[in-house]
Amino acid sequence: MPDAPSVDLVTSELHGSLEDPALTSMNLLNEVTSRFPRALSFAPGRPIERFFDLESVHSRLRTFSRHLAQEQGLSEEEVCRTLCQYGRTKGIVHELIAQNLARDSGIDADPEAVVVTVGCQEAMFLVLRALRADERDVLLSVSPMYVGLTGAARLVDLPVLPVASGPTGIDLGDLAAQIRTAREQGLRPRACYVMPDFANPSGLSLDLARRRELLALAEQENILLLEDNPYGLFHGSEGTPPTLKALDTDRRVVYLGSFAKTVLPGARVGYVVADQRVAAADGEVGLFADQLSKIKSMVTVNTSPIAQAVVGGALLEHDFSLEQANTRERGIYRGSLNRLLTGLHSRFGECPGISWNAPTGGFFVCVTVPFTVDDALLEHSAREHGVLWTPMSHFYSGAGGTNALRLSVSSLTAEAIDEGLDRLTRLFAEQQADILGSSGES
Amino acid sequence: MPDAPSVDLVTSELHGSLEDPALTSMNLLNEVTSRFPRALSFAPGRPIERFFDLESVHSRLRTFSRHLAQEQGLSEEEVCRTLCQYGRTKGIVHELIAQNLARDSGIDADPEAVVVTVGCQEAMFLVLRALRADERDVLLSVSPMYVGLTGAARLVDLPVLPVASGPTGIDLGDLAAQIRTAREQGLRPRACYVMPDFANPSGLSLDLARRRELLALAEQENILLLEDNPYGLFHGSEGTPPTLKALDTDRRVVYLGSFAKTVLPGARVGYVVADQRVAAADGEVGLFADQLSKIKSMVTVNTSPIAQAVVGGALLEHDFSLEQANTRERGIYRGSLNRLLTGLHSRFGECPGISWNAPTGGFFVCVTVPFTVDDALLEHSAREHGVLWTPMSHFYSGAGGTNALRLSVSSLTAEAIDEGLDRLTRLFAEQQADILGSSGES
Repeated sequence: MPDAPSVDLVTSELHGSLEDPALTSMNLLNEVTSRFPRALSFAPGRPIERFFDLESVHSRLRTFSRHLAQEQGLSEEEVCRTLCQYGRTKGIVHELIAQNLARDSGIDADPEAVVVTVGCQEAMFLVLRALRADERDVLLSVSPMYVGLTGAARLVDLPVLPVASGPTGIDLGDLAAQIRTAREQGLRPRACYVMPDFANPSGLSLDLARRRELLALAEQENILLLEDNPYGLFHGSEGTPPTLKALDTDRRVVYLGSFAKTVLPGARVGYVVADQRVAAADGEVGLFADQLSKIKSMVTVNTSPIAQAVVGGALLEHDFSLEQANTRERGIYRGSLNRLLTGLHSRFGECPGISWNAPTGGFFVCVTVPFTVDDALLEHSAREHGVLWTPMSHFYSGAGGTNALRLSVSSLTAEAIDEGLDRLTRLFAEQQADILGSSGES
Repeated sequence: MPDAPSVDLVTSELHGSLEDPALTSMNLLNEVTSRFPRALSFAPGRPIERFFDLESVHSRLRTFSRHLAQEQGLSEEEVCRTLCQYGRTKGIVHELIAQNLARDSGIDADPEAVVVTVGCQEAMFLVLRALRADERDVLLSVSPMYVGLTGAARLVDLPVLPVASGPTGIDLGDLAAQIRTAREQGLRPRACYVMPDFANPSGLSLDLARRRELLALAEQENILLLEDNPYGLFHGSEGTPPTLKALDTDRRVVYLGSFAKTVLPGARVGYVVADQRVAAADGEVGLFADQLSKIKSMVTVNTSPIAQAVVGGALLEHDFSLEQANTRERGIYRGSLNRLLTGLHSRFGECPGISWNAPTGGFFVCVTVPFTVDDALLEHSAREHGVLWTPMSHFYSGAGGTNALRLSVSSLTAEAIDEGLDRLTRLFAEQQADILGSSGES
């Protein structure tokens, strides 16, 4: 028997995404987090877990089963088959999702245009896979951008052109310019990805006027908008403007939905609303959702109906309003955000060079500092000061974010926020002293 | 407000897979099935559903939760977090799967080399995505081949070169020749996909000698083997030879696993064992599983821990042996297969030009007939004779299978098999009369 070779494969002969910062940075951040389990962490965008309850998983399954029997008239055998057997590729909670969208987001969605996916990540992947026909295709995205978007794009070899967010959440002049330049280079801009409410990572939101302008620009330039909305329900007292999809009269918007923050991350259920009309080579016209469904059948076949039932049960139990179901969580997130903003003000309000934005909702605040923020500093911060956060540079596809960090409040108590800020204060003071020290030396 | 345009997208500007036979044939077959819901169907490879039981979903969830608490020492809060929160990308039932593999398949798997996936389909997708680095890469597959494999390959623009199966399940001479020809053309054959036990769609199995020769050839040619094994447990009284992975001393085999047939399709849980050692650009060596995990994080993030718990609970309840857990099902499938083979013999034993293979296990039998078998005939069969089946041509990437059909017995009762065969007999008689008629005319 021959000795086993010590190496069987080399990454240079595997898909390029595996060496891409988008995929490796996620791993690196998880790795740092796991090495410092006792550090206070402003890093993860995870929802509050203290209200999770395993019994509710059981009761939601039962609620959904009852719904199938009583409302849809299925026999016991048919209910069992629906939850246990292979099933509809586009999912089994599409009608409930359409009702939820009408109730919470002002979106009038055809249930047939809904594809239920394994989390919002799969929804994103399906859309990008469909839109990337050849090497001319490019995606635009507001920058700094969500790593999951960059990673999914990389998996289908779709370049992402960054669009400046500016102070208003999107610089429409830059978007128009990027589209123009791309076309001059023979490229084909297909869509622009945007989180209009409390974006990850910037925390920025688009106001109503900006949303209308963005829709008008998308129509004028003939591109799609990929609207991702995981945080919209976690707003302040003033609420949020209508979603892009609610304002969309022209089927410009592909709407990406997540239940990870509003129902349960462990269900891994998301969806996409894709009501665009697609003409096939034979002239037949169908929904974009059906094209995405074809791709889904070759990625995950269908989303676990058991997982879908957990989400479906939650929708039924809350009369389709996750806005209402999350009243308590929304209050907590808002309290945490205020605590963070107040704490930043009291500690750094007088510090030249340190600034931050002040979102009225969502999970994230972005802090700018007068020193370099990179992975080495994160590791130092974890080791020496016991506090974790995310370097903003991970959210830029090129240069950018080297002086900023993202703080997430979603999984911290008020006390942990205060203590975390104290630790951050020590880190910042140390770094600023270093700057003063080194500038003294020069 | 302008009129909405009637078409928003055209498939020629979407990814080419959307016009590919692999993706459209699945849809077409489903569509025919849904239009003739009362037809007897030899088409789907679905497992028996009469033993499905929703209460067992609940009890398995509880079994797995108890396991986390009692065996792994997790607190109630930690158990809840494990099932409800975001979690480990590679999954949470990897250790249980490793125990199952040791028990049922003679495979000694490092749990860290296991990636739990959203069904076996995602496992396949991840592996093909990783292996397709550039346009030189090609995959080999025994032909006729599983449509899910072809479709996943198409999604990552990876050509699949067919290898003849011959009467022994794989023509190794043809495999060597295909590899040689591909290399002469500057292509890079990466792996050969094979179902060694009761393959879908052919029903063929590799004997032990053939398995050893295949492993030797893979080593000699330096390609991987992708072993897919959804039907191995549904064997006849003589069992099956060891899996390729059990025989693999050289980390040549990437093992693709499914719980859809052995536990529950509705969980959508599969896995891949990828213990190959991969060297990164920086010289660091890790497991192929960790590369697949990076890709997974951008496709589905992680597999629903709730769905994993349902499978984990089943493994625990059956002391890790799905071989034992499926004693009843195995008996039923074997009875159905015998009934089908006996029924074919009694009806067509004397018919020149009609022949079939005689698998000792699995779900599928392949019937060859002296007339053309295509989608038009399938539709005619459904409409006029009330019987569905699958044209074998769907399982060929090029020409092939135009005189054969696949019959699946997995979801039919004995009575339905008999009645279905009677209907098939009428179809065949009619088609043969047509041939005689038309040859009489010529």
